[in-house]
Amino acid sequence: MERLPGFRDFYPHPLPHQDVWSAAARNHLFDRWRSVAHAYGFHEYDGPPLEPLELFTTKSGEEIVDQLYCFEDKGKRSVALRPEMTPTLARMVAVHERNYKKPIKWFAIPQLFRYERQQKGRLREHFQLNADIVGEADPAADAELIALLIDTLRSLGLTSEDFVVRLSSRQAWQRYFAEHCQDEARAYEFYQVIDKLEREDPAVSETKLQALGFSLDAVRAFIDAGKPTPELQSVIENLAARGLAEFARIDYNVIRGLAYYTGVVFEAFDQKGEFRAIAGGGRYDGLIKLISGGKTDLPAIGFGMGDVVLLELLQKRNLLPAFDSRLDVFCIIEDEARRADTLRLIQLMRDAGITVDFPMVSMKPDKQFKRALESKARFTVRAERTAEGQMQARFKNLETRVEEATPPEGLAAAVVRVLRANPAV
Amino acid sequence: MERLPGFRDFYPHPLPHQDVWSAAARNHLFDRWRSVAHAYGFHEYDGPPLEPLELFTTKSGEEIVDQLYCFEDKGKRSVALRPEMTPTLARMVAVHERNYKKPIKWFAIPQLFRYERQQKGRLREHFQLNADIVGEADPAADAELIALLIDTLRSLGLTSEDFVVRLSSRQAWQRYFAEHCQDEARAYEFYQVIDKLEREDPAVSETKLQALGFSLDAVRAFIDAGKPTPELQSVIENLAARGLAEFARIDYNVIRGLAYYTGVVFEAFDQKGEFRAIAGGGRYDGLIKLISGGKTDLPAIGFGMGDVVLLELLQKRNLLPAFDSRLDVFCIIEDEARRADTLRLIQLMRDAGITVDFPMVSMKPDKQFKRALESKARFTVRAERTAEGQMQARFKNLETRVEEATPPEGLAAAVVRVLRANPAV
Repeated sequence: MERLPGFRDFYPHPLPHQDVWSAAARNHLFDRWRSVAHAYGFHEYDGPPLEPLELFTTKSGEEIVDQLYCFEDKGKRSVALRPEMTPTLARMVAVHERNYKKPIKWFAIPQLFRYERQQKGRLREHFQLNADIVGEADPAADAELIALLIDTLRSLGLTSEDFVVRLSSRQAWQRYFAEHCQDEARAYEFYQVIDKLEREDPAVSETKLQALGFSLDAVRAFIDAGKPTPELQSVIENLAARGLAEFARIDYNVIRGLAYYTGVVFEAFDQKGEFRAIAGGGRYDGLIKLISGGKTDLPAIGFGMGDVVLLELLQKRNLLPAFDSRLDVFCIIEDEARRADTLRLIQLMRDAGITVDFPMVSMKPDKQFKRALESKARFTVRAERTAEGQMQARFKNLETRVEEATPPEGLAAAVVRVLRANPAV
Repeated sequence: MERLPGFRDFYPHPLPHQDVWSAAARNHLFDRWRSVAHAYGFHEYDGPPLEPLELFTTKSGEEIVDQLYCFEDKGKRSVALRPEMTPTLARMVAVHERNYKKPIKWFAIPQLFRYERQQKGRLREHFQLNADIVGEADPAADAELIALLIDTLRSLGLTSEDFVVRLSSRQAWQRYFAEHCQDEARAYEFYQVIDKLEREDPAVSETKLQALGFSLDAVRAFIDAGKPTPELQSVIENLAARGLAEFARIDYNVIRGLAYYTGVVFEAFDQKGEFRAIAGGGRYDGLIKLISGGKTDLPAIGFGMGDVVLLELLQKRNLLPAFDSRLDVFCIIEDEARRADTLRLIQLMRDAGITVDFPMVSMKPDKQFKRALESKARFTVRAERTAEGQMQARFKNLETRVEEATPPEGLAAAVVRVLRANPAV
């Protein structure tokens, strides 16, 4: 029986000749995401992976239904697996915002689901770091959020030679559109053309733009001029004060496909242009009001960073650790009469947080030693009895080959001492 | 717009007058689950939350469909949100078992879904620690797994006064059944009666048992005798060698409802009997063969421990931490001319992993100081300029009220030094 197409199994470590995915790689990303978000004072939250379908259609219109895993549950409710986190965030904030000082700085690492047509690199689920600042309209919040995005990527070993955040502005595009077209209802149609400009055949874009009263040349000139709005100027100066200027630049090619952005928008790309966007986001000042049915009106800005493109980029740049699992201790039982003593030693070490494994059934000593080496144990431990019948532990450092004996109660501390002094590479 | 009934929002910290759930409480459980599993040499894995429906009906029969979130996807596949992890584990092991030395020791922390009738404490999703040992039939594996279960609960502060693991044996019950009834096809029907014995009206149980040729008194005598099988005897001696004897006892009231258990079965309960089972599991030596269509035949034993009962128990026993979020540093900006300098200091500290927050927009100094206290910051930091125009950082320990000044490049190290010497309580 096979898993569903577009879904991933996460084996503990990368398997030979398989995809880059593994639980170890995923936890590596999650750990870095979490620790940088914590350093920025963001708090983690989560919501249900299954939500009322209406939560997503309210935000994105009925057309999103085609891309959703949606169905009717046994209580006749229309429900959907979450394709994105922002509607859930907006719902949660609207319910309990009075409990929180503003701005609210929250992050989540949800698994998200979309029924995409199958193609390379297009999965039907992925994990995403979602970070949002709610309740602050000043561009200082935009800068804080974009700095978090940059530092998250830096924490994984990526440099300004690897990636850049392209900054743009819905306000700039709104103004440009209004100067050339009076039919405000067609603005979103125009944004969609801009969003596809870099991928689309120029002749097609030209035709579509002319139908809206624009020329491709004029649009390109506007993009090339890249005149920053006051908000973008403020973001750039703020990032420069932090020493992060080299990681961001104005690029009006970015506009973001979604309808609800209201201000600064941005996308992070690899510098060589080999991959799809690493992350993207923007300001969405009207969305919480929309989702809460007018109950709560708070400005907000957020971004999402998926695990798929990021892991592929890190692998390509040789920035993924070896994900070597290694034991602290492998216990060797040469004499089955010592098994009970060994179990006692194992318990003492595990109680101290030491990673210990051992042969569960009788096994030849040389095979046990081979196991210890294969599992890259730092130590072997053997239970012994002294001439007086006292239990003692003999532990051997497999790197230095130094061997010591200690009473059972001293074993865990002795092992921890060496592990701390010589952490695994 | 509300979330679906039976699903939970995880706000960062427990909200006043709300349920015990929060992202902080969830991460507390996950951290303890992970660290004890690592100490035992278990490796983390995960699979898709959505699987082919057939994966679950193969294992549990068509009747499970009533309890599943299942639907037809856009590719006309019958799919279901996973109600348990074991079938996914069996599928994953069967595909790649040749890559792994036996026994395989794996754990996962999946979110699981069941369309349960709504009642208190019965959610429609929960998280579960799943731990399994695959490829070892000896009771030593049963003991290792049960020791992991015990130590997971101990790591959360629970003692033998709080919980006990009730050990039983499908082999013992099989033998008892075979001695009194020749119709092997009715064994599972009999197990279901035993499984409900403690909750069911005795008259109802008596009637059902008599229909199968048993008497309630004789069944009760068998349970009360509690004669251990050789496997159970071995598990108990193994746990005793580890010093864990007080956490487990034989109790043939336990039989586990599912059809596929083949050997030792067990459930962990709170000693006061106030809650449903904290965890349960058992040996399922035929399941991997069944799921893999006969391709892979490996013995296995596993357990699941949900987050819902466990969190309620920990709260009742006052064993949940305060989940106080506290900042390391709150930066105070008294003069907006120092904002750029402050941003630089913030970046230096966050690069060193220090948790820093600051007022994003101009704010009165006394209000800023109030914010620093509310967020329980350990330090305030201010950017200053010396008479010579050099930037320096003034940092104040809010506990000792000691204030120091340092050049920017010395700030992070100075803060880390104090934080390490005086970790947060």
